[in-house]
Amino acid sequence: MKIIGEPHAMQGLAEELRGQGRKIALVPTMGCLHEGHLSLMREGKKRADTLVVSVFVNPTQFGPQEDLGAYPRDFEQDKSFMQEVGVDWVFCPTDKGMYPDGYQTYLTVEEVTQNLCGRSRPTHFRGVATVVTKLFHIVKPHFALFGKKDFQQLVVIRRMVEDLNLDIEIVGCPIVREPDGLAMSSRNKYLSPDERKEALALRKALDRARDLYRNGERSAQVLVDEAHRILGLHPCIRADYVSLCDTGTLTDVETIEGETVMAIAAFAGNTRLIDNCVLTDLGKEGI
Amino acid sequence: MKIIGEPHAMQGLAEELRGQGRKIALVPTMGCLHEGHLSLMREGKKRADTLVVSVFVNPTQFGPQEDLGAYPRDFEQDKSFMQEVGVDWVFCPTDKGMYPDGYQTYLTVEEVTQNLCGRSRPTHFRGVATVVTKLFHIVKPHFALFGKKDFQQLVVIRRMVEDLNLDIEIVGCPIVREPDGLAMSSRNKYLSPDERKEALALRKALDRARDLYRNGERSAQVLVDEAHRILGLHPCIRADYVSLCDTGTLTDVETIEGETVMAIAAFAGNTRLIDNCVLTDLGKEGI
Repeated sequence: MKIIGEPHAMQGLAEELRGQGRKIALVPTMGCLHEGHLSLMREGKKRADTLVVSVFVNPTQFGPQEDLGAYPRDFEQDKSFMQEVGVDWVFCPTDKGMYPDGYQTYLTVEEVTQNLCGRSRPTHFRGVATVVTKLFHIVKPHFALFGKKDFQQLVVIRRMVEDLNLDIEIVGCPIVREPDGLAMSSRNKYLSPDERKEALALRKALDRARDLYRNGERSAQVLVDEAHRILGLHPCIRADYVSLCDTGTLTDVETIEGETVMAIAAFAGNTRLIDNCVLTDLGKEGI
Repeated sequence: MKIIGEPHAMQGLAEELRGQGRKIALVPTMGCLHEGHLSLMREGKKRADTLVVSVFVNPTQFGPQEDLGAYPRDFEQDKSFMQEVGVDWVFCPTDKGMYPDGYQTYLTVEEVTQNLCGRSRPTHFRGVATVVTKLFHIVKPHFALFGKKDFQQLVVIRRMVEDLNLDIEIVGCPIVREPDGLAMSSRNKYLSPDERKEALALRKALDRARDLYRNGERSAQVLVDEAHRILGLHPCIRADYVSLCDTGTLTDVETIEGETVMAIAAFAGNTRLIDNCVLTDLGKEGI
C-alpha cells in the first residue's frame, strides 16, 4: 500500500495505470474508517485491478456552524484497516492541495439537493459534488463506490455523473449496521452511552414504517406520523426530518406507488444522524 | 471526416483512441465557422493525432433575451471548411442529447465571471463552463483550443480546468481579424453595411489605448475615457463596457502595472461585439 498526497502525482499515476490497461476503483472517504467503508473497498477490489481510497475531510461540504474542526480523524487506525483490505493507493491531499488560493469553481446539482438534508445543509451537496468531481478527475477511476446510508448523496452523484457525461460507473453498496441495527457512521463516535442507546430510534422508526407498508399502508402521512411518534418516545432524539420520497427525484410523495425511500435525519444530543429504507425494495435487500 | 451525434458513441470512440495511445485535440465551436475557428483547428492538428471539432449551439449560455434562435447556422458550409482543414471527427449533438429531461447540473466559476461580459450576461459563463466540461468528458481531449477574442471565456476555462483538476492542456490562440482589422466573429453576419463599417470603432479604440500605453500613459481612467471617446464618434455604436483588467483575476485596475488587458463590448445596432488587447503583451504578439 502506497500513500500519495499531491494531486498531480496521483493524476500522473492514474494516467499511467490506465495506459497499462488497468481498471481503477475509487472509494472516496473522509477517513475515520469503519466496516461500512471497508465493505466498499472489498467491493472495489472485486471490480478493478487497482483500488484507490481517498482520505480527505472536505471543508467545502461543511456549513459554517458544522463539525469540520471536530470531525474525527485517526489516520494510523485508517492505514491499518486499509492495509488489511488490500488497498493499493491511499490518496490523502491537504486542504491547500485541493483548494489553493484563488479557488472558485463549484458544481451545483439543482433539484435533487432541495429536499431532505439539502434543507438544513444548504451548501453541503455543492461541496460534495465539487470534491467528488475533483477526485474523479485526479484518480480517473472506472468505478466509484458509495454507501447507501448517504442516500441523497448517492442520488446527487449519480445525477451529476449522468448530467456531466462522466465515464464512470457509480456503485451503490448496502448500509452496514452495528449488531443492534444502528447504521455505521464516523459520527457515532460522538454519542454518549445514553445517546448511543437511543440512536436506535431511527432504525426502529424505519422498521415500523416498513411493517406498516408490508401490511398494505400506502399513505405517506400515516407512515411519517408513525415514524415521528416513535422518534418522540426517545428523549435524547430530536427529528430534523422524516420524509417519504421518490428514489429518483427525491421529491415527497403522498401515496406510495413508485420506488419510494423513507429517509430520516435526527439529532441524538448534538450529533446529527441519518438512516433510510427503500420501502419498495424490501423483497430485494431489506434494511 | 466522420460525423457523430450521440454523446455515448463519441465517448466510446474517444476512449478507444486513447487506448491506442493517440492524442486528441478538441476545438469546441457553435458552428458558423470562420477563419478564427479554422486557425484553432490548424493548431489542433499540429499538436495531436486526432482532431475533433464540436458543433453545438449551446442553449445554456444564452440569456432569455439573447439571440439563441437567430444565431447563424450553416452546417453545409461548416462541413466543407472542416474537410478542407482535415478534421477527423465532427461531434454535433442535439439539444436533447446534451440536456435530456431532468438535466440539473451546472458549474459556476465565481470570481472571474463577475466583471466584463458577466455583468450584462449573468448566466452566460455558467452555461459555457457547463457545456465545456461536458464536452471534455465526452471527447476526452489532451488539448483544447480556444480563441483569445473571447478573452474572459478563456480565463474562465483555464480557471475551471485548474480548479477541477481536469487533465487537459488549454491552448489560447491569437485573434484572427478581417483585412481592415475587425475581429472575426460569427455575429459579424448580423451587421448592416453601415454597422459593419462602424464596427471598426472597437479596434480603433484599442489601437488608441495601445498607442497611449506605448507612450507611457499608465492611468486606466485616461485610457478608458479615450476609448469611450472614440466609440462615441460612431453613431451606430453603443458601448456596453470598456475595462482595463488584470489578465488573471479580471478585476479592474487603476494603474497599469502587471499584465493588463483592455476589453471592450459594444453594440453595433442590435449586434453585440467584443474585442480586446493585452496592452502589456505588445512586444510578444500585438493585436
